[in-house]
Amino acid sequence: MNYLFVEHILGRLMIAYAGFMVIPFLGALIWREKSMPAFLFSIIVIMVIGLGLLHHGQKNGRMGVREGFVIVAGAWLLTCSTGAMPFAMSGVVPNYLDGLFESVSGLTATGATIIDNVEILPKSILLWRSLTHWLGGMGIIVLFIVFLPNMTGAVHLFKAEVTGATSERVLPRIRDNALKLWQIYLGLTAVQFFLLLLVGMNWFDAVNHTFSTMASGGFSTKNASIMYYDSLWIELITIVFMIITGINFGLYSLALRSGIDKIFKDLEFRFYLIIIAVSTFVVTLSLWWTLGLGGGNSLRQALFQVVSIITTTGFVTADYDQWPSVSKIILLLLMFIGGCAGSTAGGIKVSRIILLFKLGWVELKRAIHPKAVINVRFATRSVDPQIFNTVAVFFFLFFAILALATLLLASTGLEPFDAICAAAAALGNVGPGFGVVGPSTTFSSINSFGEIVLIICMLLGRLELFTLLVLIQPEFWRSRKGW
Amino acid sequence: MNYLFVEHILGRLMIAYAGFMVIPFLGALIWREKSMPAFLFSIIVIMVIGLGLLHHGQKNGRMGVREGFVIVAGAWLLTCSTGAMPFAMSGVVPNYLDGLFESVSGLTATGATIIDNVEILPKSILLWRSLTHWLGGMGIIVLFIVFLPNMTGAVHLFKAEVTGATSERVLPRIRDNALKLWQIYLGLTAVQFFLLLLVGMNWFDAVNHTFSTMASGGFSTKNASIMYYDSLWIELITIVFMIITGINFGLYSLALRSGIDKIFKDLEFRFYLIIIAVSTFVVTLSLWWTLGLGGGNSLRQALFQVVSIITTTGFVTADYDQWPSVSKIILLLLMFIGGCAGSTAGGIKVSRIILLFKLGWVELKRAIHPKAVINVRFATRSVDPQIFNTVAVFFFLFFAILALATLLLASTGLEPFDAICAAAAALGNVGPGFGVVGPSTTFSSINSFGEIVLIICMLLGRLELFTLLVLIQPEFWRSRKGW
Ligand SMILES: [K+]
Ligand SMILES: [K+]
Repeated sequence: MNYLFVEHILGRLMIAYAGFMVIPFLGALIWREKSMPAFLFSIIVIMVIGLGLLHHGQKNGRMGVREGFVIVAGAWLLTCSTGAMPFAMSGVVPNYLDGLFESVSGLTATGATIIDNVEILPKSILLWRSLTHWLGGMGIIVLFIVFLPNMTGAVHLFKAEVTGATSERVLPRIRDNALKLWQIYLGLTAVQFFLLLLVGMNWFDAVNHTFSTMASGGFSTKNASIMYYDSLWIELITIVFMIITGINFGLYSLALRSGIDKIFKDLEFRFYLIIIAVSTFVVTLSLWWTLGLGGGNSLRQALFQVVSIITTTGFVTADYDQWPSVSKIILLLLMFIGGCAGSTAGGIKVSRIILLFKLGWVELKRAIHPKAVINVRFATRSVDPQIFNTVAVFFFLFFAILALATLLLASTGLEPFDAICAAAAALGNVGPGFGVVGPSTTFSSINSFGEIVLIICMLLGRLELFTLLVLIQPEFWRSRKGW
Repeated sequence: MNYLFVEHILGRLMIAYAGFMVIPFLGALIWREKSMPAFLFSIIVIMVIGLGLLHHGQKNGRMGVREGFVIVAGAWLLTCSTGAMPFAMSGVVPNYLDGLFESVSGLTATGATIIDNVEILPKSILLWRSLTHWLGGMGIIVLFIVFLPNMTGAVHLFKAEVTGATSERVLPRIRDNALKLWQIYLGLTAVQFFLLLLVGMNWFDAVNHTFSTMASGGFSTKNASIMYYDSLWIELITIVFMIITGINFGLYSLALRSGIDKIFKDLEFRFYLIIIAVSTFVVTLSLWWTLGLGGGNSLRQALFQVVSIITTTGFVTADYDQWPSVSKIILLLLMFIGGCAGSTAGGIKVSRIILLFKLGWVELKRAIHPKAVINVRFATRSVDPQIFNTVAVFFFLFFAILALATLLLASTGLEPFDAICAAAAALGNVGPGFGVVGPSTTFSSINSFGEIVLIICMLLGRLELFTLLVLIQPEFWRSRKGW
């Protein structure tokens, strides 16, 4: 393991991170908020860590698979742990663990909060919460489209184009791709911001909700989330941008080069839209018949919640915990499905679900043709059988971790269904679940042990399980030449 | 497809089935019960169907993979639909669908009942319920050990010894193996029956509970199930025999030939015992601390319920729906795990869970050694990679079907957690779940549509999904020579 190179990269990352924290710090200065010293101190600590790592590290070095994993894990560990400092030190949360929960929830774009009343928070703190979403969302896109496209078996368009971070020669290519994704992300952020301004949202709320939407995050500046505004236009803009952030960002990059039709030809994108349409239809009918909301209102509430949950954003315009059972089950299933691979959305991902159904069909064929060689295609490409294995294992590990987390949460006293929903909402990076962690409540009723369980779930979910789980192998840490 | 041979086999099966139904018919005669004509009429109908099939069918014919699947599906369809007749015609249930539910629940050894008060049922009807368990349990063992050992990726000891029903030459071998399993099953049945008599259970209850235990069924002659007797000895005997029926029956066959130590060397058996031990330990502590039952009582209740749920028997000695959340989650997880492959227990099966964890570990290794060829061993044998695929797909399909069933049950008005538990209890052939289908209630609150959903779940679960799902392929039914 080339620790010196790892330190160099992490050092640069921390300095950039400190740079981003200057934004809420300046806000705190301008708005004369009591959170100012907390930001100042945090920035100094992060700078010291960053400069220390840079000074001790070495710029040149061979970058192998293992270095890549350690950098990813180290980056999330450092940004989450230091990102918690402004929360803890400004006193908006009673202890560091609560701050860490908020910071992990922010950077993983989960959007679960332990703060019951966000409307009394300093604006600088609100801005930092949204900014952690925005930064984390971008980090994930770059990570899974540019660095680890083949890692977890999600089928990316970029797969054939990027070879992964295993050799120095591909670094300029990687930088180029990462830059393109940044530009797309920035561009979409700017457009949503101006649209929200245009329909009357104030600039501060518009900045925060844009950051939150882009990352499929879900933190809001209002306790009632988007419901607060009761504005059809704000809801429509949010719906459109939630859908946009749930799509593989590699597709946008491809569309810029080869035309917008590339997006519409994508199999995962089509299924994603179909799932949204069908779910919205069923939920609309269920609300219309059961709650007597009227057709238009039912559609409005159904579409918003369906999109918010499948993209694992977690904004709410209705207390869906009071909805009919069938609607709740649909939302629960959407939580598990999640958005497209290479998007900022969490969950299992649409492409994995498609592949698993294909794999199921292949197995049924094999039962009557035991010796046939069956070639499986995803869209027009035939799929490496190894990807099947990876996807199937991902699915199993997702449920195995969910089961363990549910058990641990139940041991803190949560009732079974609440525990399942809290674990699923954290592992899928959704944010709100049902019951005690439902849309109208927060995670403040969870005790410290439960918070630790959920923090680990949020990180595992965000890094698509494998990226963190590889580190638990003793073999990973054994020194060995020639990887 | 050689339908004539299929008809011949099904005809013979129906005649044997009618023969078994003579037992409760004689009971009804002796006890002068009003259910007598219902049995008589049912026997006549089954005999007519059986003789008709025999007469139309042909004894000699090539038995291929597809014929095998059609025979299995046909056998379950015919036995379930005609087994419902005594229930419906004797008036113990209000309509045929309720009778079908009871019959499917019996033959699949699920043990879910829609009859609120079983203590007022004619004894002949109670005997028929238990007998359907016993027959179904035996059928499943023979099916999955002798006929389809490789079908669903469960790892059997018999795998290397039996080549499957693809050629006429292996028929004597198959008959021999099936006979040996019958003898073991009969022997164990006799032992449990005499032990229950010995500790004071009356002969009628002993017969019924023995039939029910052997099949991991769960139907009881008492509304309160085993709790009714409040007898430590009855509980201990039941626990031991539930554990025995949750073990691969192929192991007993092997032990008879090669010594009892073969059982204890089996990897799946060891994990099965470890899971029981650890779960019992945690549940005991949880009951001891939370409910203040005292150590001995906590252990007694915990062990019984843990064994009853992991073997998917479904007998109860405590209303575990009132237990602490962590104990409920453990029982819920045990429902999913189930017993050993080749046993009468339902669920996903211990061997599949072990293989999935191994597969997970292999994937993590592959992430750092992308090009390594990793050989996976189950016990001392190395595992065909194809089995991994089959097991992983099984796991996915199990949850996909669970999700669909939950959604459909929710549409009948069941609350989310109740719907999940009812679907899981049916698909895992457990019987009781939690909430509205909990240990102290029955399935009588489920409406007709819900009953149909649960009937399909019970059959899919019992036949390990694939055995029925292969039939939904249009290709399966296309006539083609040379299979
Ligand atoms: K979220
Ligand atoms: K059962």
